[in-house]
Amino acid sequence: MLGRASVLVKPNQLETWDVKVADPEPGGALVSIVLGGVCGSDVHILTGEAGVMPFPIILGHEGVGRIEKLGHGVSTDYAGEELKPGDLVYWSPIALCHRCYSCNVLDETPCENTQFFEDASKPNWGSYADYAWLPNGMPFYKLPAQAQPEAVAALGCALPTALRGFDRCGSVRVGETVVVQGAGPVGLSAVLVAAQAGARDVIVIDGSPLRREAATALGASLTIGLDVAPEERRRMIYDRVGRNGPNVVIEAAGVLPAFPEGVDLTGNHGRYIVLGLWGAIGTQPISPRDLTIKNLTIAGATFPKPKHYYQALHLATALQDRVPLAGLVSHRFGVSQAGEALSLTKSGTAIKAVIDPTIT
Amino acid sequence: MLGRASVLVKPNQLETWDVKVADPEPGGALVSIVLGGVCGSDVHILTGEAGVMPFPIILGHEGVGRIEKLGHGVSTDYAGEELKPGDLVYWSPIALCHRCYSCNVLDETPCENTQFFEDASKPNWGSYADYAWLPNGMPFYKLPAQAQPEAVAALGCALPTALRGFDRCGSVRVGETVVVQGAGPVGLSAVLVAAQAGARDVIVIDGSPLRREAATALGASLTIGLDVAPEERRRMIYDRVGRNGPNVVIEAAGVLPAFPEGVDLTGNHGRYIVLGLWGAIGTQPISPRDLTIKNLTIAGATFPKPKHYYQALHLATALQDRVPLAGLVSHRFGVSQAGEALSLTKSGTAIKAVIDPTIT
Amino acid sequence: MLGRASVLVKPNQLETWDVKVADPEPGGALVSIVLGGVCGSDVHILTGEAGVMPFPIILGHEGVGRIEKLGHGVSTDYAGEELKPGDLVYWSPIALCHRCYSCNVLDETPCENTQFFEDASKPNWGSYADYAWLPNGMPFYKLPAQAQPEAVAALGCALPTALRGFDRCGSVRVGETVVVQGAGPVGLSAVLVAAQAGARDVIVIDGSPLRREAATALGASLTIGLDVAPEERRRMIYDRVGRNGPNVVIEAAGVLPAFPEGVDLTGNHGRYIVLGLWGAIGTQPISPRDLTIKNLTIAGATFPKPKHYYQALHLATALQDRVPLAGLVSHRFGVSQAGEALSLTKSGTAIKAVIDPTIT
Amino acid sequence: MLGRASVLVKPNQLETWDVKVADPEPGGALVSIVLGGVCGSDVHILTGEAGVMPFPIILGHEGVGRIEKLGHGVSTDYAGEELKPGDLVYWSPIALCHRCYSCNVLDETPCENTQFFEDASKPNWGSYADYAWLPNGMPFYKLPAQAQPEAVAALGCALPTALRGFDRCGSVRVGETVVVQGAGPVGLSAVLVAAQAGARDVIVIDGSPLRREAATALGASLTIGLDVAPEERRRMIYDRVGRNGPNVVIEAAGVLPAFPEGVDLTGNHGRYIVLGLWGAIGTQPISPRDLTIKNLTIAGATFPKPKHYYQALHLATALQDRVPLAGLVSHRFGVSQAGEALSLTKSGTAIKAVIDPTIT
Repeated sequence: MLGRASVLVKPNQLETWDVKVADPEPGGALVSIVLGGVCGSDVHILTGEAGVMPFPIILGHEGVGRIEKLGHGVSTDYAGEELKPGDLVYWSPIALCHRCYSCNVLDETPCENTQFFEDASKPNWGSYADYAWLPNGMPFYKLPAQAQPEAVAALGCALPTALRGFDRCGSVRVGETVVVQGAGPVGLSAVLVAAQAGARDVIVIDGSPLRREAATALGASLTIGLDVAPEERRRMIYDRVGRNGPNVVIEAAGVLPAFPEGVDLTGNHGRYIVLGLWGAIGTQPISPRDLTIKNLTIAGATFPKPKHYYQALHLATALQDRVPLAGLVSHRFGVSQAGEALSLTKSGTAIKAVIDPTIT
Repeated sequence: MLGRASVLVKPNQLETWDVKVADPEPGGALVSIVLGGVCGSDVHILTGEAGVMPFPIILGHEGVGRIEKLGHGVSTDYAGEELKPGDLVYWSPIALCHRCYSCNVLDETPCENTQFFEDASKPNWGSYADYAWLPNGMPFYKLPAQAQPEAVAALGCALPTALRGFDRCGSVRVGETVVVQGAGPVGLSAVLVAAQAGARDVIVIDGSPLRREAATALGASLTIGLDVAPEERRRMIYDRVGRNGPNVVIEAAGVLPAFPEGVDLTGNHGRYIVLGLWGAIGTQPISPRDLTIKNLTIAGATFPKPKHYYQALHLATALQDRVPLAGLVSHRFGVSQAGEALSLTKSGTAIKAVIDPTIT
Repeated sequence: MLGRASVLVKPNQLETWDVKVADPEPGGALVSIVLGGVCGSDVHILTGEAGVMPFPIILGHEGVGRIEKLGHGVSTDYAGEELKPGDLVYWSPIALCHRCYSCNVLDETPCENTQFFEDASKPNWGSYADYAWLPNGMPFYKLPAQAQPEAVAALGCALPTALRGFDRCGSVRVGETVVVQGAGPVGLSAVLVAAQAGARDVIVIDGSPLRREAATALGASLTIGLDVAPEERRRMIYDRVGRNGPNVVIEAAGVLPAFPEGVDLTGNHGRYIVLGLWGAIGTQPISPRDLTIKNLTIAGATFPKPKHYYQALHLATALQDRVPLAGLVSHRFGVSQAGEALSLTKSGTAIKAVIDPTIT
Repeated sequence: MLGRASVLVKPNQLETWDVKVADPEPGGALVSIVLGGVCGSDVHILTGEAGVMPFPIILGHEGVGRIEKLGHGVSTDYAGEELKPGDLVYWSPIALCHRCYSCNVLDETPCENTQFFEDASKPNWGSYADYAWLPNGMPFYKLPAQAQPEAVAALGCALPTALRGFDRCGSVRVGETVVVQGAGPVGLSAVLVAAQAGARDVIVIDGSPLRREAATALGASLTIGLDVAPEERRRMIYDRVGRNGPNVVIEAAGVLPAFPEGVDLTGNHGRYIVLGLWGAIGTQPISPRDLTIKNLTIAGATFPKPKHYYQALHLATALQDRVPLAGLVSHRFGVSQAGEALSLTKSGTAIKAVIDPTIT
């Protein structure tokens, strides 16, 4: 059997290939892609900024798919739910090794032996494709009957990332005040979770009116554009939340100057959760004295655990009728149009683009 | 009644005055000073670096004293223990207002209405003196019968500070690896607490052989001098604790370059507790990416709660026979010799100096 | 100046007295009562079940009032907000001593020196009255300008109690499943907080259709009557939340058999928070093996801290337009009708009764 | 290749068999047993009290072994340390499935698909044998070069169990007071960890003078026999730790009456950790009111995670020269003497018996 896949042959060279579709290995599963999410990090992989990859690779680490075949021994998803061909699933794109220090001693992610990509000529889990071959150990979870695939795909790996961040650094509690820097998918996910958790105020800083509008739809109580100068942003935030300052600030901007601004914004005894700067090379000056005087906690987090994908799936499903999640999927492209999807994502003029293999 | 007191009239002008000793107010207590601790921050107050003070002031915020008179309504210490004149007490030098946002909403220190100093002509709790007048609300705790005043005074306000830091940022757990930057009183306190908490390794970085020796006596398993270059220090530490790096790093150096070094030293999923930089004006460059990639937590802490003084008192008492705590008191001075005590402390050639009013 | 007060002279003997209204003491405040909440525990005090009281006493520990006079030195509320006569305030009825082991070592409530009631002939903070005299140290907080007094008074001391319970035993996190036993004010408060915190399901067990309806209005997703047998209740709950069982169960029923049922209902790795059994004398059999096998946590909590009153005030204010809080105040009585208010409360046919001194 | 194994054919019928020793499967390892620990639960399996087993089975779930052969693809232990034949390892006897709700959603043990025993005729990890065949996924950790096998084996699965209990329910903090009910291996492990964590007092209740002596050697500060009546035990404990009561109580007695006594012993705001009652069928009456009034937390815990075995290994190694761990191994038996080992263990007159295959 053959299927189409969007293959990155080398930086900036994207081709559509017909690739062989293998039967699932024992413990694995073969799914047909329903929606493959286009993530901002895919843009960095395309351009080469994300480092050297084992080219050629099939892009796409976010997906909702339909079970075509189950590997030997598989009768349930990774939460123990019964599963059969035809069921929709959502997966964590990282198979943990369960043999390294992180897996067995820290009990934490990232796993030290993570294989993000496989050669395009081999069985492959890239989601810009007709099929994804999920190896043994790559966790997938069945969509509840009522789940809308678009609602689940809308925030992609960003919602698990935000959930993992709050898990590591302390959940938002009822009545807290929250600032989110950046309203891309990670920022929007943070807004959604904070609003659902009962934050009194969720204030968003982002340069795009479209994204600010999306943030408002997900629960932001105030949005501030980048045309407002940093000092004025600070004044607006403190006017709103009171002189003690915000309880929680979340960095989801992905640009270095957000960091010292975030440290400065965070209120006394507050916590600053850094989610978006995993790829930003460089340093920023901060005043360690402020950490002490303000009794500040700063915590970074990256790479969700499988459970955060499960939580994201069920949170999205629970909220899909109350919050316009599915509507965040603003653009759809066929497998052979992946280049356009990436250009659009790079431009920042879309909320979320997805690959939909039914589009030809 | 009159008593001697070491009065800072203006920066760098220290005088010995005879001051009036008032009866305790209702809820307060009058104590005769047994030992008044000389703290590094007193040096900064002397020189004016710590900012403008309400001169003239009586120096000294650390003390062990003997109850002379109890104010109206006082029959117990602040832990509910029965108390009578003649008993020895140890106090927290900060009376909380119990009326501000920090006291009643955050339930945290520092209190926003803290009065550190009182005019030298008024009833006064400065401990470089014959007597301290403890106002209503300034928590004091009775020394257990077997407690050695020197063991209690040895680490001064540093031991409560370290306990508060661990309380806020997570206690050291059995088997963890710990690095302490700086072996002044705060660093030595962190060493003591980490060693008692069952750390597998407690590694200390300090430039003074005397302090490194004290660190070893309190439980450090390895000490490193400042003559060892930072890259080599890092290598030594990672060789010792393993490639995942230290679980906990504590900043007690008080100098800005310690900060980026500490961030860099802290291992994956580790925590960096910043205790010593409350007075260091300036910024330092760090890489926010590292926080994310390493899943790091950085937390500052300052100003212990009353309970940390209680814990410090009982910890010191419990350990006084196993650890050479009393021996850390390396120098004793009379009230009129406070200037010498401060010069010595500034020079860094003492572990701990105290004011002992019996010396004349 | 005289004011009316509902005085409990001895068990079951309630009289309306004209009592002297004193000026506030330094640090205190005099307020005129706007709404005095009638709490279920007042019924137990009336009947004598709650133990011997220092009769005669003025009933009422819940209140919203208007500042008439501020004591010497008072210019702010207990969160540091500026305050002047005419402002509305909400208070915590317990002045902490700040001198006992609980206050200064555990840093926890209840305080060991709590004085719940004062003789009716003395300045008095009972809220079934025209005026309440708040002593120095009894924390009160200013209502935000937009706050509705009824919304603040609706859940009385129950909302702080629920917030304290979650604070001690772990907040509800987004996506968790919650069962609440009992839908009196504490149960309704737990429902409200759990729903706001993003619980996926909030299931309520209560015998009263009226209370179940109120629970639904506050966010319950399923309610179960007591006419449903315990085994069937369990089946319904597990059908709904899945075979792992509920993440959190909250006891707010106040009757002993709720306890073993709650232990049984709580799911694997779940937590059971016991809030309502502070007055239920007696034991109940549970299987300790179940705690181990299910990795269960059971935690009791009682007596909110001042901060929980502040949080309750601001949470109620934030929610008053989204949730029918004010509407929970189902009955209003004058000071001289306190007996009727208590009879009604005892009957369980009201959601919340309040004393409104403007009713004559 | 053949090896001897102690096979339980049916309850109370133990035989020594020569069994086939298979090559390791991919991902697995074959070890020769150095020490196989005899655990109290083995006695319950022998007698049938622990339920129906898939007979015939090879007994023994605790072990230190020497790598004979590594399965395909294995070059490190489960902490990422390089490994080769001849190295000593310690293992967790439970291979997690990584596919169930507990593994992937709760991120907790016990795994729902745990296979404790395998038929004696198949490749087998029972440790009362010459060899153990560790399947793919059964975590093992290399002993540090200086580790004494006896020190590692001395507390068997009890030390990981105690570490898991503290992990779930809160570590002992420096200065806390601790009571341990029972001084079998779990109780002794709790004593060891609490003492190392800096508990001010570790008080042990046990009926056996031998075990009380061992508790003292591991760090207990006071031991109390069962000849002292419960009320007197309580008085002794409260006299020692003060009227607030112990901060932490650990149940490791395994008998039902310990449970209500433990609830009663635990101090205000304390926590009671139930480790030993996983097999005790039956209920016990407790007063839920006490949980509320004392703000108590009660938590059960069972089945360590792999990381707790790693921690136990390194803790034992770190302490072996300071604490007489190896000396806890009081009796050694050959494979064919397993019946005697179990009889002795049942009698309670040994601290720890082990199977040593070199004894014939």
